[in-house]
Amino acid sequence: MPLGRQHPADSLLKAIDAMGAPVCVGLDPVLERIPSEVRIGTPAASVARFSLGIIDAVRGIVPCIKVQAACFERYGADGFKALEEVMVAAKAAGLLTILDAKRGDIGISAEHYAAALFGHFSADWCTVNAYLGIDGVTPFLAHGGVFALVRTSNPASDALQSLQLTDGRSVAEAVASLVAATGAQSIGTSGFSSLGAVVGATKAQDATSLRAVMPQQLFLVPGYGAQGGTADDVRRCFRPDGKGAIVTASRSVIYPTCDDGEHWKSAVERAARTFAAEIRAVCCAAASQP
Amino acid sequence: MPLGRQHPADSLLKAIDAMGAPVCVGLDPVLERIPSEVRIGTPAASVARFSLGIIDAVRGIVPCIKVQAACFERYGADGFKALEEVMVAAKAAGLLTILDAKRGDIGISAEHYAAALFGHFSADWCTVNAYLGIDGVTPFLAHGGVFALVRTSNPASDALQSLQLTDGRSVAEAVASLVAATGAQSIGTSGFSSLGAVVGATKAQDATSLRAVMPQQLFLVPGYGAQGGTADDVRRCFRPDGKGAIVTASRSVIYPTCDDGEHWKSAVERAARTFAAEIRAVCCAAASQP
Repeated sequence: MPLGRQHPADSLLKAIDAMGAPVCVGLDPVLERIPSEVRIGTPAASVARFSLGIIDAVRGIVPCIKVQAACFERYGADGFKALEEVMVAAKAAGLLTILDAKRGDIGISAEHYAAALFGHFSADWCTVNAYLGIDGVTPFLAHGGVFALVRTSNPASDALQSLQLTDGRSVAEAVASLVAATGAQSIGTSGFSSLGAVVGATKAQDATSLRAVMPQQLFLVPGYGAQGGTADDVRRCFRPDGKGAIVTASRSVIYPTCDDGEHWKSAVERAARTFAAEIRAVCCAAASQP
Repeated sequence: MPLGRQHPADSLLKAIDAMGAPVCVGLDPVLERIPSEVRIGTPAASVARFSLGIIDAVRGIVPCIKVQAACFERYGADGFKALEEVMVAAKAAGLLTILDAKRGDIGISAEHYAAALFGHFSADWCTVNAYLGIDGVTPFLAHGGVFALVRTSNPASDALQSLQLTDGRSVAEAVASLVAATGAQSIGTSGFSSLGAVVGATKAQDATSLRAVMPQQLFLVPGYGAQGGTADDVRRCFRPDGKGAIVTASRSVIYPTCDDGEHWKSAVERAARTFAAEIRAVCCAAASQP
């Protein structure tokens, strides 16, 4: 972590406390789904304009946005230009940023990716794939917060992540152990590490055991809402004190149903408030359990 | 695979036959290491200029280059502009391209990445991380050739990829089974699939068992030379008939030692010829074994 910068976990928890809800809006802009009003000019310019609208609508409601790099990368250099603009705007709006890039490489290539995500795009956190091993993760940790993919929300993930090892663990639990051991070297004053874990809400049956292996990891929890994860599922990702996870929702917030005559940005704002209230209730329930 | 395009494995094998060597030059341009003569203007422009020099030096010697996306991405939009230029130049020089991006995501995000790699950047092949499961691989396969990470060359990969499952396989072998099953749906007339596998030369002890699980996969083999993989190691990645793998070398070819007064591009050309001859000898030895 660069000198003079606050510990990524401490910053994120502070921002969550300030907003009163451990939530994150996933910014996955898809040209075909964005309002015609902003669909002007090149695809990349349209995606940027839509993204700035989302940032404006959710600022002051959520602590954080998760930006899907693929949605920008598909437009090449123009897309990366748009991504630069969006990351700057998010920061200016007081939002912390998770750049969901799922990069994974080793050595100097991993350092290049880290320079891109944390240096060039100024992300506070990024997502990383740990299949190559921990030397694919540590180059990122030197520059900011990292959520390593441990248990992903998609159905086909079971065919690898749920396989059983001879020592009784699953493959995902083995990744969790590596994450916990490496993350132990970068714990903030909050007691949480700058190395967190992606744990899908749709895999809640595994959340309790993963939480036991990774008590100091912040969980980034996708899959709530549109992908089928429920409030009950999400609850298991939090510690008993209602801390330790941040739940992300994309489609349900950024493509909401508009009421008659309602502007799309008002509908997004309303959807973000509803989402934050739902997850706030989950945490309160977690914290009040005996 | 788009209509009218040759099967990626058939094209690659045809190009290998034409050059007489199953080799690939890894283009991992690092600003600090490139000749001062091309280090002019922005970092991205310097990296592009160096890359065009490499392409010019190795054309007609090797069938294929592997371009490390991270080296370009670190410069944001400027880097992606440079990457566009390099990919176009490689194609114009008659080289097939592997875009080494190690992307891995699911659903529409994976489709976006595939659109970037195969559409925007016109790669013939790309590398993909399969930790999310096969639904993180199939969106790429629809558009071109894919090398899935199975057994990577870095030391820390053992801590996950070598773990033993209750059914007797290693984690890497489980990934190999998924790759073989999915790849069976896209076999070319050559008998090889458009879904190949990355198998590091430094993990040659596993190559025989991985080859048994994946008889129809082309192996992309990094780790030869600078990373410690030997000719003997590499031999095990080929089938007994001397086919089925493509060996990649980066630093030893693109940063060669120059003789007194020799131009850097001549030194690169010489290093590429030496590398091709070494691997040609490996294949001949593999093919002539009883």
